[in-house]
Amino acid sequence: MFELSSYIENKNRQINFALAKILQDSQFSEPIIEAMEYSLMAGGKRIRPVLCLAATEAVGGKPQIALPAACALEIVHTYSLIHDDLPAMDNDDLRRGKPTCHVAFDEATAILAGDALLTLAFQILSSVQFTEENQAADWLSVIRIISTAAGYQGMIRGQMLDMAAEGRILTVDELKSMHALKTGALIEASLLCGALLAGAETRQMKMLKTYAQKIGLAFQVTDDILNVEGNPKIMGKAVGTDELRKKSTYPAILGLETSRQFAKNLVDKALQALEVFDKKADPLRALASYIIERKR
Amino acid sequence: MFELSSYIENKNRQINFALAKILQDSQFSEPIIEAMEYSLMAGGKRIRPVLCLAATEAVGGKPQIALPAACALEIVHTYSLIHDDLPAMDNDDLRRGKPTCHVAFDEATAILAGDALLTLAFQILSSVQFTEENQAADWLSVIRIISTAAGYQGMIRGQMLDMAAEGRILTVDELKSMHALKTGALIEASLLCGALLAGAETRQMKMLKTYAQKIGLAFQVTDDILNVEGNPKIMGKAVGTDELRKKSTYPAILGLETSRQFAKNLVDKALQALEVFDKKADPLRALASYIIERKR
Repeated sequence: MFELSSYIENKNRQINFALAKILQDSQFSEPIIEAMEYSLMAGGKRIRPVLCLAATEAVGGKPQIALPAACALEIVHTYSLIHDDLPAMDNDDLRRGKPTCHVAFDEATAILAGDALLTLAFQILSSVQFTEENQAADWLSVIRIISTAAGYQGMIRGQMLDMAAEGRILTVDELKSMHALKTGALIEASLLCGALLAGAETRQMKMLKTYAQKIGLAFQVTDDILNVEGNPKIMGKAVGTDELRKKSTYPAILGLETSRQFAKNLVDKALQALEVFDKKADPLRALASYIIERKR
Repeated sequence: MFELSSYIENKNRQINFALAKILQDSQFSEPIIEAMEYSLMAGGKRIRPVLCLAATEAVGGKPQIALPAACALEIVHTYSLIHDDLPAMDNDDLRRGKPTCHVAFDEATAILAGDALLTLAFQILSSVQFTEENQAADWLSVIRIISTAAGYQGMIRGQMLDMAAEGRILTVDELKSMHALKTGALIEASLLCGALLAGAETRQMKMLKTYAQKIGLAFQVTDDILNVEGNPKIMGKAVGTDELRKKSTYPAILGLETSRQFAKNLVDKALQALEVFDKKADPLRALASYIIERKR
């Protein structure tokens, strides 16, 4: 039986060490660096970087080679949280049990810290030391995958659709398309980057893409369920907020029980997509189940 | 005698055509794309992309090869203007004679349009089609140069210093360091990227770096002078605003006449740095003089 909790713990240690090192190298001690560090080290679940490294392993690569991509993915995710929390956007005061960046610092610093993190991600991806010439093309592909997922055709479009949906009840299909962009795109990018850096074949990439789409959606459905019945102490944030804001969610549209079943079916489909992989994909298999069983 | 105005006109046509094409390819017609287009096509002077293409030519390369870098530089510049104008930052209502992005749209859209432009720049730089393998490494270098110039060690740090300086009189040295980051870093990146893509030698890169630093500073001194004695109709923005806000500027510290002399000396030094180049650097020579003689 694969031991997921120690796998995640071990990977999180590597990721957190690498992220801390990036900011320590900055040599400045200014509000902007403090704000970047504050949000980056606020105890995130590191799901995207773990998925990235697990995808590298599934294809037979050493996870170490994908570590810069894993860091960049978490940094892009953190920037998006800082900007989404801003007063002009979702206006959230609490994130991961701590005041959000613009509350802990100020609005200008939060905007710039987000900008700086987004820029830093591409700085990391373009500064990787490599020996073989063809690796440059691989890192260029990683930058293309991440920037496309994060940009106006991906994550940013999802946030626009999310804001436009406020006060309106969406259909399940509208909800799916919105989440496919808002959270799905970067999760998909995480798996594709990890696999690409390990030299995955086209068929493997295709299957990991399917896996990513299924768990990305399952992740969001579970988030919505946790907002209804989760424990605020474990989650580090308030629950019941979606209902209060009249947000369209899976439990609101489908009901809790059907939402749970929907998430489970998605995980089953994700596991089917992994059938072409051997036991090196066991971390990805365990992560798929973890995503709907997690308590935070 | 080199004909600068037709040179700039010709280059601007190429750049504007390429920029318009990038957004047309987006296939969406949503507020975010409109906002990106609104700010990107607001009639900017295109100084950074023109410098980039002129650097390519100075080293003997075809400007066409550097066009994606030129576009990315203008896009990064535009993102920084949108975010700097936000209410939480400089709170400016007018830019290039038009309402700023958050006034024409709304604050959330302006934040996201800025984010989307910044991300788009790296998408462009990582999507360049090339045939020779070693070009991947060059484009990776371009991404490293631009992200470093734009990030928390460069442009963003300059904006933080600028905001921190509000209400305080800076020394000339403090003013220089702030501008070297806020505007200088991206101007330097423009020249280095253009030269690198044309295969510049180390000595050429070094001289272009000096040129960039001198004209970058001269550009800012001239901006300050124009804010005192410029024609608001030609400039498309109000003058006298720096004095009203008690901003530290070169004219305020050195006086107008000394500021003019300072800018002229900087241009002379920029021209000296070009002495190692032949007549292919004539556009760069003419641009140095244009930077202090411009009326907007």
